[in-house]
Amino acid sequence: MVGGGRGAFIGAVHRMAAVLDGQIELVCGAFSSDPEKSKLSGEDFFLPSNRVYDSYEEMIKTEKQLPLGERMDFVSIVTPNHVHYAPAKMALENGFHVVCDKPLCFNMEEAYELERIVAETGLIFALTHNYTGYPMVKQARVMVKNGDIGTIRKVIVEYPQGWLATKVEDAADQKQAAWRTDPTRSGIAGAMGDIGTHAENLAEYITGLKISEMCADISTFVEGRLLDDDGNVLLRFENGAKGILHASQISVGEENNLNIRIYGTKAGLQWFQQEPNTLYVKWIDRPMEILRTGVGNLYNESKAHTRIPGGHPEGYLEAFASIYRNFAFCVRARLEGTSVDPIFMDFPSVSDGVRGMNFIYKVIESGKSAQKWLNV
Amino acid sequence: MVGGGRGAFIGAVHRMAAVLDGQIELVCGAFSSDPEKSKLSGEDFFLPSNRVYDSYEEMIKTEKQLPLGERMDFVSIVTPNHVHYAPAKMALENGFHVVCDKPLCFNMEEAYELERIVAETGLIFALTHNYTGYPMVKQARVMVKNGDIGTIRKVIVEYPQGWLATKVEDAADQKQAAWRTDPTRSGIAGAMGDIGTHAENLAEYITGLKISEMCADISTFVEGRLLDDDGNVLLRFENGAKGILHASQISVGEENNLNIRIYGTKAGLQWFQQEPNTLYVKWIDRPMEILRTGVGNLYNESKAHTRIPGGHPEGYLEAFASIYRNFAFCVRARLEGTSVDPIFMDFPSVSDGVRGMNFIYKVIESGKSAQKWLNV
Amino acid sequence: MVGGGRGAFIGAVHRMAAVLDGQIELVCGAFSSDPEKSKLSGEDFFLPSNRVYDSYEEMIKTEKQLPLGERMDFVSIVTPNHVHYAPAKMALENGFHVVCDKPLCFNMEEAYELERIVAETGLIFALTHNYTGYPMVKQARVMVKNGDIGTIRKVIVEYPQGWLATKVEDAADQKQAAWRTDPTRSGIAGAMGDIGTHAENLAEYITGLKISEMCADISTFVEGRLLDDDGNVLLRFENGAKGILHASQISVGEENNLNIRIYGTKAGLQWFQQEPNTLYVKWIDRPMEILRTGVGNLYNESKAHTRIPGGHPEGYLEAFASIYRNFAFCVRARLEGTSVDPIFMDFPSVSDGVRGMNFIYKVIESGKSAQKWLNV
Amino acid sequence: MVGGGRGAFIGAVHRMAAVLDGQIELVCGAFSSDPEKSKLSGEDFFLPSNRVYDSYEEMIKTEKQLPLGERMDFVSIVTPNHVHYAPAKMALENGFHVVCDKPLCFNMEEAYELERIVAETGLIFALTHNYTGYPMVKQARVMVKNGDIGTIRKVIVEYPQGWLATKVEDAADQKQAAWRTDPTRSGIAGAMGDIGTHAENLAEYITGLKISEMCADISTFVEGRLLDDDGNVLLRFENGAKGILHASQISVGEENNLNIRIYGTKAGLQWFQQEPNTLYVKWIDRPMEILRTGVGNLYNESKAHTRIPGGHPEGYLEAFASIYRNFAFCVRARLEGTSVDPIFMDFPSVSDGVRGMNFIYKVIESGKSAQKWLNV
Repeated sequence: MVGGGRGAFIGAVHRMAAVLDGQIELVCGAFSSDPEKSKLSGEDFFLPSNRVYDSYEEMIKTEKQLPLGERMDFVSIVTPNHVHYAPAKMALENGFHVVCDKPLCFNMEEAYELERIVAETGLIFALTHNYTGYPMVKQARVMVKNGDIGTIRKVIVEYPQGWLATKVEDAADQKQAAWRTDPTRSGIAGAMGDIGTHAENLAEYITGLKISEMCADISTFVEGRLLDDDGNVLLRFENGAKGILHASQISVGEENNLNIRIYGTKAGLQWFQQEPNTLYVKWIDRPMEILRTGVGNLYNESKAHTRIPGGHPEGYLEAFASIYRNFAFCVRARLEGTSVDPIFMDFPSVSDGVRGMNFIYKVIESGKSAQKWLNV
Repeated sequence: MVGGGRGAFIGAVHRMAAVLDGQIELVCGAFSSDPEKSKLSGEDFFLPSNRVYDSYEEMIKTEKQLPLGERMDFVSIVTPNHVHYAPAKMALENGFHVVCDKPLCFNMEEAYELERIVAETGLIFALTHNYTGYPMVKQARVMVKNGDIGTIRKVIVEYPQGWLATKVEDAADQKQAAWRTDPTRSGIAGAMGDIGTHAENLAEYITGLKISEMCADISTFVEGRLLDDDGNVLLRFENGAKGILHASQISVGEENNLNIRIYGTKAGLQWFQQEPNTLYVKWIDRPMEILRTGVGNLYNESKAHTRIPGGHPEGYLEAFASIYRNFAFCVRARLEGTSVDPIFMDFPSVSDGVRGMNFIYKVIESGKSAQKWLNV
Repeated sequence: MVGGGRGAFIGAVHRMAAVLDGQIELVCGAFSSDPEKSKLSGEDFFLPSNRVYDSYEEMIKTEKQLPLGERMDFVSIVTPNHVHYAPAKMALENGFHVVCDKPLCFNMEEAYELERIVAETGLIFALTHNYTGYPMVKQARVMVKNGDIGTIRKVIVEYPQGWLATKVEDAADQKQAAWRTDPTRSGIAGAMGDIGTHAENLAEYITGLKISEMCADISTFVEGRLLDDDGNVLLRFENGAKGILHASQISVGEENNLNIRIYGTKAGLQWFQQEPNTLYVKWIDRPMEILRTGVGNLYNESKAHTRIPGGHPEGYLEAFASIYRNFAFCVRARLEGTSVDPIFMDFPSVSDGVRGMNFIYKVIESGKSAQKWLNV
Repeated sequence: MVGGGRGAFIGAVHRMAAVLDGQIELVCGAFSSDPEKSKLSGEDFFLPSNRVYDSYEEMIKTEKQLPLGERMDFVSIVTPNHVHYAPAKMALENGFHVVCDKPLCFNMEEAYELERIVAETGLIFALTHNYTGYPMVKQARVMVKNGDIGTIRKVIVEYPQGWLATKVEDAADQKQAAWRTDPTRSGIAGAMGDIGTHAENLAEYITGLKISEMCADISTFVEGRLLDDDGNVLLRFENGAKGILHASQISVGEENNLNIRIYGTKAGLQWFQQEPNTLYVKWIDRPMEILRTGVGNLYNESKAHTRIPGGHPEGYLEAFASIYRNFAFCVRARLEGTSVDPIFMDFPSVSDGVRGMNFIYKVIESGKSAQKWLNV
C-alpha cells in the first residue's frame, strides 16, 4: 500500500475493503511520505518492520527482489491525486498489478500515459470508483442492458455534500479538506474532480451510455477557495437522452448523497447511495416496485455482489470490497493461469479513469465557456 | 365559474377548494362552450337553471344586472389557456374580481394587457399557483425571509410527471392531454407552461429571489408531439445563487412530484409536494429537523394556513382552498370596507402571472438558442 | 349541527367535510350549550339568525315544523361523548337522519338503545370513524376480501399520539384535553375510547374479521389523570389470526400515527394514516409494490373515493368528506325514492358504533382482569 | 472457528466481521462435523492443512499444545444451538477465550453451567447479539442513560421476518430453515429463540431496564412445524414501563425488520435495523431530529463504533465487526497485560446469554399458561 498512514481516511477504507472477503492480506506498505509516520502506521497494522518502507520507491524496488509468492502481489495507491501517477507507473513498470484511488491522476497527460503503460504491460489495473460496487447498482445496470426500462430518455445524477460549506480547509486538523481544495495536490478541479467524477462514472456505468455534450455552470461559493465547490451541468448522451449532473460540497446538511434517476420509455429507476440496498422501479403500466439487496429474483450480477441475506444491510465498505474481491479474483487467475467467471470481471479500469479525467477537464472548460454546448 | 363542466379536471378542484372554508358559494356558471353541457353541469351542482348560462359573455352581462348582494361577487376562470384572457378582461371591465387558473393566459401581449386592466380597475385578481398555498411552503418562505437559513447559494426545483410519456393525447378520452399538447390552446409551451411555471413560481415564492439568467435544454421526446414534454434549465438568481429547474411529463412513473431544495449558508430546506406536511431542515451545525404541519412552534404564516391538528394530513385541496379563502377575505373586506389581516393578503397576483408568462417565453427562447445564458 | 361552535375542533372538521363535495349545505345549528356562543358561531357560518338555536331540543322541534325541502335533512352531532345519545335519540324519534361523531355514546346502555331506535325508525345513521374513508383503506379492504393476500394470520394496528404526555388538561385553554380525560364526559375510557376504538374499527373494517378474544394491559401514566392514557392489547380473531393493538396518548413526539399491518399467507399490507395515499404491498413471491391513491389499476371501491389525480395528495378532510358524501347519497336516494350505487353504501353504521362501545368496555375490563383471555 | 463450513450462513458473517478491522486473523478451524467438508472449507480460507481439524475436540487439543503466540488466541463457535455448549465448555476449560453465536446454548442447564465456567476460569466470553453493535444503538443507549429522553414509559420492539411463511424447511437446500425449526437442534423455541431473543436483548441493552413480567401469545402458523413461528408479548419493565415485543417469521414480505421505539417523558426514540444509520428523536418540545451515524456531535460511544464519515453507510457486518473488535481489544490487553479503554469493554457477555435463555424459557412458558402475567 502506498499512503494511508495515520490520519488518512481512504487508506483505512481500502484496508478494510481489501481484507473483508478473505482474499487479500496486507503484507507491506509505504504509508506516508514521512518515514517515521510510515513506520508507526506499519506497527498499527501488525506488519513486520522489514515490510514497512520509507517510500514507495523503496517498497517497489525491495519487494520486487523477494521471491514470487512471498512478495506483494499488487500495489494499492491511496494517496492524494498528485501522488497517483508516479507510484502507479513505477509499480506497473516493475510488474505489479495496481489498485488506484480515483480520480486516476493529476492531469490528462498522466492519464493518457498511464493508459498506455497499462496496455503495454498487460497488467491488471483497478480504479476505485467504489459506488458501482453496490448490488443494486449492478441490478440497475443489467436492467438497463436487458431493455427492462426501454430506451433511456432522461438521466439525473446528483452528488451533494455540505462539508465544505465554510472554509474548513484553513483548520489545522482538516487534512482531507486541505488537499482537496489545493490545486497543487488536487488538480484543476475541486468538487467536480472529487465527487463529480463519481457521478459521471455512475451514470455511464448504469446506463451504458456515453455523455456526448455538456453545458456547465461551475462555481466557487466559499470566498478565498481556489477550486470549484459546486457545479450544475446539463448533459446530452450519445443516444439522444438528456440529463442533469450536479455535484456540490456546499449543500449544507447533505452528507454524501450520491443518487441517480434514470427514465426510460418503460420504467424509471431511482437509487440513493445513502440507502443503497433499495432500488425503486417506477413502471409505466404497473405499480412501483421496491427491489432490495438479496431479496427475491434479482439478476445474477447483483447476487454475485451480495454477501448476506436480505434485510441485513450491506454498506459502503462492502461495495468497496467488491471491487477488491473482483480484482483479487482476476489477479489470482492470472497468477494461477486459470480463468475468471466473467461476472467478476467487473471493476473500473484505467480507461474509466481516463474518461473520468476527461470529464473533469471538459466540465471545467465548459464552466468557463460562453458557448452553450461542449462536445465531450 | 367559467368552464369546469362535466369531464373537466381543474374545475372540480376549484369548486371543492372554493367551498371548503365556508366563505364562498357557487352561485352561477357558464360551465362549457357547449350550452347543453353547461346546463347539465349546472344541474350537477344544484344551481337554479336561470343562473346557468350558455356563455361567459351572457353570464357576465346578466349577472351584472342583478342587484348587489344577489349577483356573483367574482368570476373563476378554469378553462384552457387560450380562454383565459377574454373572460378575465370582460369580467374585470364589468367590475368583477377574478380568480384565474394558471398560466395567466396564452401569450405575452395578453399578459401585459391583463396586468394593465387589473391596475386600471383596481380589482382583485388571484392566479391559482396553488402549490404556494401549502402550510410548509409558507413556513419555508418565512424561514428564508427571516434569515434562518442564511444567504441562499443553491436552489434545485423539480417537477417530474410521467403521464405524457406516450402519445396519450391521441386517445378520445384524453381531453386533459389533448389541449395541453396543442399549441392553439396551450400556447408556445407544453410541459414548461403547464408545470415548469409552477416550479418557477414556487422557487421565487419561497426564496424571495428573482431568476436573472437561464440556460435551457428543451425537448420533445414523444414523436409527433408539437410542444415540449421535458426541459432542463440552469438558473442564476439575482443574488448570485445558482440553480437547476427541471420539469418533465415523460419521466415514467412519476406522479406529480414537484419538489424543491434550497441551500443557504446556515441550512438547507427540502419539501416534496407529494408529502406536503413535512419540511426537512438540514442545519449546518446541528441535526436535521423535521418540521410538520400543525406541530410545534411554526411561524404564524404557516399556522394561519393550517386547518387541523398535526398528524391529520392536509392535502392538495386544502392548499388550493387557502388561495380561495385568502382571496375571499380580501373581496369581503373590499365589499364591506374593512381591512384584512396582512397574513391573508397572500395569493399569487396578476404580476406573478406576467412573470410566469415571461418565464415560459424565455425558457423556450433559451432552449432554441446557441447562446449559453439568456437574461430574464 | 349540534355542537361545533367557536373553539371546537371536530365541529369544524365536520363542516368542511360535509360541504366539500357540493352535496350538503349547513342550514342550521345549535352550536353550543351556551346560547350566546351558539349565536356568534352561527354568524361565523353566515347562517340566518332564525336558524341558529339555543339548544338541540329547540332546533329539532323547530326544524321539524318547517316544510319538507326547507327544513334540515339530517342532524350532525359533534359534541363530547356524553352529549351524543340524547340529541341522536331525539333527532331519530323526530324523523331526522343522523351523523354522529365517535365513539357512539357514553355507555353500553345508550349504545344498545340507539341501535334499537335506528332499527325501529329505519332512518340512516352514520358514525364518523373517518379513517375508513381513505382511498387506500378501501383498496386494502377489497384486496383482503378478494383473497389477494391470502388467509390473514397476523394484524398489528397502532395508534400512538403524544399530546397527553403531560397533564395538559389542567390548562384553561385545553378544552379538547379536558373533556377527553374527564370520566363524566368521556365515559369509562380515555385513550382507548378516543383512539383505541378507531384502531379496532380500522382493523375490523379492512380485514373483515371480528376480534374474538383480547388480553389488555391498560395504563395511566400521567399522575392524577382519571382515565387511561395508554393501552397494549393482544388480539385473537375469529379465524385464528393473532394480533396486537396499541393506542397511546403519552407516546412523546407522535402526532396522530394510526397505522396498520396485515400479514396474510400471500402478502402483507401496510398503511400509515399520516401518509395516507400510499399502500405497501409486500408479496411473498415478488417485489414489494407501492400502490398510490389515484394511480393505475386500483379497485373501483378505491377509485370511487378518490377526487383528484395521483400525486395530488388527498388528506384527512377528504377521507372524512367521503363518509358525508356517501351518507348524503343515501339520504338523497331515500328522499327521492331512488337507489344508490352499492359502492357508496359504505360508511360506519350504528352497529359499528355498538361494536366500538363493546370494544371499549371489554378492553377496560380485560385491563383490570388477572385472567389472560377475555371473550369479546 | 468451530462450524461455518461451506453452505453455512453465520460462519461467513463471523469471518468477515472478525477480519474487518485488521485485529483478528483466522488461523485454524474445525469447520464441519464432516471432516472432508472441514478440509475443503479450510482450503477456501487459504489455511494450511495442518490447522484444519476434523473436530473441535481435535482442534482444541492440538492448538493447546502449540506454543503461545502461535496457537489460536480464542475460539469462535458458529454452529447450531445444540453444538454451542460442548465446544464452549471445552475451549474454556482448556484456557481459550470464546466468541459464541446466540442464543447461548440449548437449554437452561447448559446456560447456567457455562456462566459458572466463565466465572471460574475468568476467561473472556462474547455472545454475538450483533445488533447492539450499531453506532446508533450505542447512541440511543447513552441518550437513555444520560436522561436525555426522561423516564421511560413505553417500549415497542419488533422483529418481523417472512422467510418461514411456508414450510421451506422441507426443501433439501434449506439447511438454515431446517435446524431452526427442529427442536432437537434449536431447543424449545423457534422464532422466539432465533430472533425474539435479539429483540429482548436490544430492548434491555438500550433502555438499561430489565423485563420484570410478560404475557405471551405464541403461535405456530405453518402446519406441521414443530416450533413457534410467531409470538406477541406484553411486557412490563422493572421501573413500571410497559411494552410490547413481537417477533415473527411468518410476516410475509418482511426481511429482517428488527426495530424499536422507546418513549420517555421527554422524547421518543426510533431505530430500524434495516436503515441502521438513522436514529429518530421525537422531542416533546421541539421538532423531531434525525441523528445519523458519523454526523455531528454524537456521543463518544457512538463515534467509537463508527469507521467512516457520515453518509457512507455502515451495515450489518460493521456492527458485527464491532463486537469482534472490542472482544479482540480485551483479549489483546489480557495477553499483553495492558488495560482497555472502557468504551470498548462493550459486547454481550455470558450473563446476557443466560438472560436470553431465560427469556426464551419464560416466553414459551407464558405462551402455554392461562395466567396473565408471568414473573421473569
